[in-house]
Amino acid sequence: MDYVKEYKKKTRKSSILFSKSSRFHVNGVSHNIRYYAPYPFIVKSSAGKNLVDVDGNKYTDYWMGHWSLILGHAPAKVKESLRKQIEKGWMYGTVNEQTILLSELISKAVPVAEKIRYVTSGTEATMYSVRLARSVTGKKIIAKIDGGWHGYTSDLLKSVNWPFTESESSGVVNEEKIVSIPYNDLEGSLTILKKHSNDLAGVIIEPVLGGGGCIPAEPDYLKGIQEFCKKNNSLFILDEIVTGFRFRYGCLYPTMRLDPDIVTLGKIVGGGMAIGVMCGKKEIMELADTTGKKKSERSYVGGGTFSANPISMTSGFVTLDVLKNRRSVYAKINDLGDYARKELSRVFGGDVIITGKGSLFMTHFVKNGISQIRNSADAAQCDTEKLQKYHFSMISKNKIFFLPGKLGAISNAHSKEDIKELISVSDKLEL
Amino acid sequence: MDYVKEYKKKTRKSSILFSKSSRFHVNGVSHNIRYYAPYPFIVKSSAGKNLVDVDGNKYTDYWMGHWSLILGHAPAKVKESLRKQIEKGWMYGTVNEQTILLSELISKAVPVAEKIRYVTSGTEATMYSVRLARSVTGKKIIAKIDGGWHGYTSDLLKSVNWPFTESESSGVVNEEKIVSIPYNDLEGSLTILKKHSNDLAGVIIEPVLGGGGCIPAEPDYLKGIQEFCKKNNSLFILDEIVTGFRFRYGCLYPTMRLDPDIVTLGKIVGGGMAIGVMCGKKEIMELADTTGKKKSERSYVGGGTFSANPISMTSGFVTLDVLKNRRSVYAKINDLGDYARKELSRVFGGDVIITGKGSLFMTHFVKNGISQIRNSADAAQCDTEKLQKYHFSMISKNKIFFLPGKLGAISNAHSKEDIKELISVSDKLEL
Repeated sequence: MDYVKEYKKKTRKSSILFSKSSRFHVNGVSHNIRYYAPYPFIVKSSAGKNLVDVDGNKYTDYWMGHWSLILGHAPAKVKESLRKQIEKGWMYGTVNEQTILLSELISKAVPVAEKIRYVTSGTEATMYSVRLARSVTGKKIIAKIDGGWHGYTSDLLKSVNWPFTESESSGVVNEEKIVSIPYNDLEGSLTILKKHSNDLAGVIIEPVLGGGGCIPAEPDYLKGIQEFCKKNNSLFILDEIVTGFRFRYGCLYPTMRLDPDIVTLGKIVGGGMAIGVMCGKKEIMELADTTGKKKSERSYVGGGTFSANPISMTSGFVTLDVLKNRRSVYAKINDLGDYARKELSRVFGGDVIITGKGSLFMTHFVKNGISQIRNSADAAQCDTEKLQKYHFSMISKNKIFFLPGKLGAISNAHSKEDIKELISVSDKLEL
Repeated sequence: MDYVKEYKKKTRKSSILFSKSSRFHVNGVSHNIRYYAPYPFIVKSSAGKNLVDVDGNKYTDYWMGHWSLILGHAPAKVKESLRKQIEKGWMYGTVNEQTILLSELISKAVPVAEKIRYVTSGTEATMYSVRLARSVTGKKIIAKIDGGWHGYTSDLLKSVNWPFTESESSGVVNEEKIVSIPYNDLEGSLTILKKHSNDLAGVIIEPVLGGGGCIPAEPDYLKGIQEFCKKNNSLFILDEIVTGFRFRYGCLYPTMRLDPDIVTLGKIVGGGMAIGVMCGKKEIMELADTTGKKKSERSYVGGGTFSANPISMTSGFVTLDVLKNRRSVYAKINDLGDYARKELSRVFGGDVIITGKGSLFMTHFVKNGISQIRNSADAAQCDTEKLQKYHFSMISKNKIFFLPGKLGAISNAHSKEDIKELISVSDKLEL
């Protein structure tokens, strides 16, 4: 089947609009990953599990707003609260009660969140975490994971995509202050960390590698890194932008008995509106208090025009409030994830490894003799072109949307029937 | 009059809520500048020219959401369009028509915007501009203005606040790649730029210094810097996040016959919702196209989860559309600004210099023999404590809100009566 031809036939209006978009925007998009060949469809509206494009095609969506929409698109309670908030204004530029309400929930659910600072994006949250780690320790080197993704901040733009030895971009300047360690390889990681121990400000890790392949960290790995950090007076930073409130009401780290110094949040805690969160222990976060400090003593941490705006705070608060009062959401979507992983493995036989955890899952078509996926290097050895083709075929033929090549997220708007459908079409797939 | 006592009496509920906020947040806020002693009031709603706090006080607002709200708070047309957009979803995570509509307006109004990329905040927009300048030129040094403010990005966190020779923060790493030049001093600036000419990737300047004192650049200064950049193969970047669509329908730079390579936008073009924009000439922006390039060739520019989300795009589009069809807004608010500057100068006699342009204005209480304010160093010599006291007295006694110490922005929701009231209370002021 010629999936591209089929897709073009169904998405004529998208084709015209994307040509227009390409006149105005580099590669037609405002986020590199949103482009896929021959052109991405143009979304007109979203509701529940669906994205609807300008040609009227209705897709079952597993991209779910960069995995931020755990309740599905535009859930009723959040929508109602946003409707009300719009009436009361959307940009105060000053302190508001909505922020306090959201922080009350986060601080109860995330023990390490003794102090919270809202920013506008995940990229900002990780940038500030790095700055704070350097301020607290007086050291400069930050370690990150090979394949770890913490947004586009210049402070962490290294070793994101395979091959990790190559620079990610032209135009970067402080790569020598970033070192990279192999995921789930404690011995290998400690060897590198020890080399830099004198100047190591901190280590930042996603407890489930997101963009790097949807790969959970092994608990002993994280414990070992944390232990090294504590002994070395380096900060242990967990980036839970993807994982926070994804698997349970709270972060992932307490389930592994970890004790991070700083945790970053985003996505789910903003309910789909722009947000980034840095939270952590009081004695660390207090360095960001700029009152009464000399410039050289403070850690100059934002803020920003849109930080803690009432729209994001309302959207985040109502989302968490729904989750708090309906914990069964987690049982449901985690089970659906388990089911998806099991059944996809079955229908693809030995051809794939399905990684993930809870409601996050990713299909890797094995290649180059890969028999397990423990890190981003393993994931990069798989047949990523085949994955793109698999995802695109489902967009074209079955109106099931994964952002081609990326992991899928199950939301509360999805049902077992949806997962069965996904498995059924995967079973019948001709690539 | 004891303004603090008076303020406390009027803001009891705010006092209680701010104590609560302080339990959760460093210094009680999510943006350093939003704190002022004894505590900031807590906003409950906003409409037109007003902020309303939780005690029911209604303030005439000149802070206007970090100067982002040129039509006032929650203007009817934008509100209506947001109401409709909320029904259709707020987080698509893919290309949408709202983005194309906004870009169509921006590209017509801003000649240099041959290509546009949306990001989530101004901080991100300036970060990417710096990266792109380094990618295009293969050079590393970025020059900025003493007192120039481009958000919290690590790439520009230097020489923001007086004294400019001191580091702005602990925990920063690439200060040696940032050089700082004196505003409105062409000879002094060129001397420094020439010293770094071999490795100068670009110069970034606000055409009206915002946070640095609301000081317009002298056209010859900008022309001279631009000329040097062109000759030196360095990029000339204008940060119009504050000034874009503030004085006219479009940017400020065409009125000075400038030809920047990159322009950053934000604030007004998002209508109060989270936005940052990087736009520029095609051949420069194309480096951000990551398709078919090696990692070391591309300029790795976001993007981000919230970039080009339909809420910010709708809010921005309708705001610009209103401005496009009602150009009289600019005549009105520019005139009110002229009037405010003239009359405030008159009532304060020789005690102040009122800087600004169009609808932006700032009161500087002269001190240390300052007789003109041409740059941030001049502004820093003035009596900033007195300015804080002036602003706080108006919050407490007159329910007029400037964020203490910051410049004021007049919106279309303000009337001549409001400015007259501001002048009248300034006239009767006892500090």
